[in-house]
Amino acid sequence: MSTAIEPVDPDVRAHVQSRREEFLDGLMEWLRIPSISADPAHAGEVAHSAEWLAYRLRAAGFPTVEVWPTAGLPAVYAEWPSGDDGAPTVVLYGHHDVQPVDPVELWDSAPFEPFVRDTLHGQELVGRGAIDDKGQVYFHLLGMSAHLVTTGRTSPAVNLKLVIEGEEESGSPSFAQLLRERRDRLECDVVVVSDTGVFSRYAISVCVGMRGLMRGEISLRGPGGDLHSGSFGGAVANPATALARLVSRLHDDDAHVTLPGFYDKVVELSSRDRELMAALPFDEREWLGDAQSTAIHGERGFTTLERTGARPTAEVNGMWGGYIGAGGKTIIPSDAHAKLSFRLVADQHPDDVPVQFAAWLDERRADGTIPPGIEVDVEWEPSGVRPCLTPLEHPALQSVTRAMQRAFQSDVLYTREGGSGPEADLAEILEAPVVFLGVGLPDDRIHAPNEKADVEFLLRGAEAAAYLWNDLAATWVR
Amino acid sequence: MSTAIEPVDPDVRAHVQSRREEFLDGLMEWLRIPSISADPAHAGEVAHSAEWLAYRLRAAGFPTVEVWPTAGLPAVYAEWPSGDDGAPTVVLYGHHDVQPVDPVELWDSAPFEPFVRDTLHGQELVGRGAIDDKGQVYFHLLGMSAHLVTTGRTSPAVNLKLVIEGEEESGSPSFAQLLRERRDRLECDVVVVSDTGVFSRYAISVCVGMRGLMRGEISLRGPGGDLHSGSFGGAVANPATALARLVSRLHDDDAHVTLPGFYDKVVELSSRDRELMAALPFDEREWLGDAQSTAIHGERGFTTLERTGARPTAEVNGMWGGYIGAGGKTIIPSDAHAKLSFRLVADQHPDDVPVQFAAWLDERRADGTIPPGIEVDVEWEPSGVRPCLTPLEHPALQSVTRAMQRAFQSDVLYTREGGSGPEADLAEILEAPVVFLGVGLPDDRIHAPNEKADVEFLLRGAEAAAYLWNDLAATWVR
Repeated sequence: MSTAIEPVDPDVRAHVQSRREEFLDGLMEWLRIPSISADPAHAGEVAHSAEWLAYRLRAAGFPTVEVWPTAGLPAVYAEWPSGDDGAPTVVLYGHHDVQPVDPVELWDSAPFEPFVRDTLHGQELVGRGAIDDKGQVYFHLLGMSAHLVTTGRTSPAVNLKLVIEGEEESGSPSFAQLLRERRDRLECDVVVVSDTGVFSRYAISVCVGMRGLMRGEISLRGPGGDLHSGSFGGAVANPATALARLVSRLHDDDAHVTLPGFYDKVVELSSRDRELMAALPFDEREWLGDAQSTAIHGERGFTTLERTGARPTAEVNGMWGGYIGAGGKTIIPSDAHAKLSFRLVADQHPDDVPVQFAAWLDERRADGTIPPGIEVDVEWEPSGVRPCLTPLEHPALQSVTRAMQRAFQSDVLYTREGGSGPEADLAEILEAPVVFLGVGLPDDRIHAPNEKADVEFLLRGAEAAAYLWNDLAATWVR
Repeated sequence: MSTAIEPVDPDVRAHVQSRREEFLDGLMEWLRIPSISADPAHAGEVAHSAEWLAYRLRAAGFPTVEVWPTAGLPAVYAEWPSGDDGAPTVVLYGHHDVQPVDPVELWDSAPFEPFVRDTLHGQELVGRGAIDDKGQVYFHLLGMSAHLVTTGRTSPAVNLKLVIEGEEESGSPSFAQLLRERRDRLECDVVVVSDTGVFSRYAISVCVGMRGLMRGEISLRGPGGDLHSGSFGGAVANPATALARLVSRLHDDDAHVTLPGFYDKVVELSSRDRELMAALPFDEREWLGDAQSTAIHGERGFTTLERTGARPTAEVNGMWGGYIGAGGKTIIPSDAHAKLSFRLVADQHPDDVPVQFAAWLDERRADGTIPPGIEVDVEWEPSGVRPCLTPLEHPALQSVTRAMQRAFQSDVLYTREGGSGPEADLAEILEAPVVFLGVGLPDDRIHAPNEKADVEFLLRGAEAAAYLWNDLAATWVR
């Protein structure tokens, strides 16, 4: 897909560079608002952050700007119609809340007193939210200004609808509901998400997919109460042992998940997909460092990037039963539990997992893994998250690819994120393809102390956005 | 072993019955002292209980009575030499502390206001400690008086040394140390334990063995910290999953324990042993009720009584790892743990278990059950409890058998207890065989609300003791 790279538009670059200080001053003002959504004590700051953004969007020329209340914290909505007949409609997603700052003692500076510093790579902006996600929302204002100035337009080439959420760092509890309520206003052709990163400083990339998620809790119940392991041990089934035996069957010896039909809808990697993933300059030692681990381990037949990006998983997130305090207590526990999560890839559906799991439990009853005297039940989260995967040939992805190539003057690789976010809600509820325009770097320390953004990468993000609106308008076919 | 049953000694019975009211009055006085060893607020009552018993033992004629302090709560020691040349020396073990009374609202009467009531079976004494173990200690004073009066002796036919512990219901934390410190005073030929019961009202029995115990905690460590299961899931080993796979291998599909060499020292049941156990009128439905369970499950090829009495086990007492709070947290835990306990039978030794477990872990590393990136370590309790088993042909057991047969005018069966108690310390530290003289009934509700003792069974215990001292003196060959 790496076609010839168009040269930089000197006007776009000049405009963006000319506004560098103004851009940084504005962003730093925003970063000083500690909009931590996870901390109820900061609810006022999240509201303040929403109002601040709304004010800036109005100042940037958006004719319609609204703060949308939710059951939780407010989102910001802004709309700027193109005016051109047949212009595609883009929903642009980001978030204005930030992660908590604990452990604050590991920060080298105050998290909400942002500053710019010089490094070997150029300038860095340091502070909570610099890249996740205020920096990546704010570059769009600069990108829009470049887009308008360099095209001589008074409105964008696409119908633009910004939705900037206020609860993403708390798991977006109100977001799906908000999307459903505002479904009509959010009608669109494509969703652009600016909340991800590139593979590395030297491997510019575009994210094409995220995994889905289904979570459940399994409970095994045996005796009506904890039993004395002396009096009864050896003659009744132990629920903790039974849980261990059950969980041990979740994967076969090749680390494949054993739920019947689990892989049926998985879009298998094509040789082209595998080539593209293999093209990413993966450094195992560095990855292990990030994973705080000493060894790779996973499904036989797949690389680490394939395992985390393109393959579904079954993980135990927590497991407990019996006496877990200090010292010992010689009991047979009455019950044992595990929290399980299944990461899903296209085209798996979270609703299929409980059905497959129930069939799997039937098999385990039949083969004796669940012994007599043990009752099993499973509680599933009411809804899971669907995986999303943008086909490489999708025109919107082609537009993003060209925009990123042009801004960075580099070939663009493709990544898949292992996590799960509101992207799937956007895709599902708005019934539109999702593409990712993100400029984070792996060492930006998102969610961690000393979060930073590379200033030049933020500015390239603005350039890419300026190109993207033109490209989408020029190439989109409804 | 059921030889012809000697007729009741009418003098013994007459003496015991003549003292019935006196016996009950004394015992109820003792039961009013709430000597709960598990509750530090009751330490004074436990001390009071010890002094009360010491006073009664002096009044009963014991020439030497001492209250022995320990690091915890006091024990009572009393000694009454026979005076006969070559008389065997008997240590008699019991305990004067009692279980807590929670949940007190389930008691039909005040736990420490004992009373006698008439039932279809005769009289019952109701109150905490009635059978466990004050009643079974106190009947020995009556038994001794019967022994002396009916033989015309002024000192017993055996050298008697009573050791009545004050911490048994708290796991005897100071007892082994006390035995070691007082080793010289406690020199003996045989230990008689009065803290057990018969199989049922209609199946009089003598306990011949208790299981041993070894406890450890296994820890699996993977990533240096909890990981995001989206970013990393599928590409590093999950310690909770690995723990489940490891624990699942502790037993094979026949519920045999898989530690190499685990069964090497197990004294296999002879056909005579199995006949004797099969002779016990085991009621599966009743047993399941006690086990609050809906099904029997255990080692293939053994009955429930064999499984709990004569076979070793591996049990998970507790297991935990990862997020176990409300809701979900999509992590790969950094670590996972299990508390394991192994019940042992003669002639297994607790010190062998860590060695066998280490070899088993080596096998699990070799066969891939422990995946790369997971470190395993195990912490064992500094010392375990040895199993004890008195050979059926042991002369002291023959004496106890005859004494019980005579008191109850019944054949005597043999039971094995599944639990582990200070008996093994007595056997090991005093280097003497342990026999059990106990008259509890399965429905005495020990450790539970409404504990009671059958008055007639307590009196038969006194008769059996009176016979036992004569029998031991007459038959014991050093």
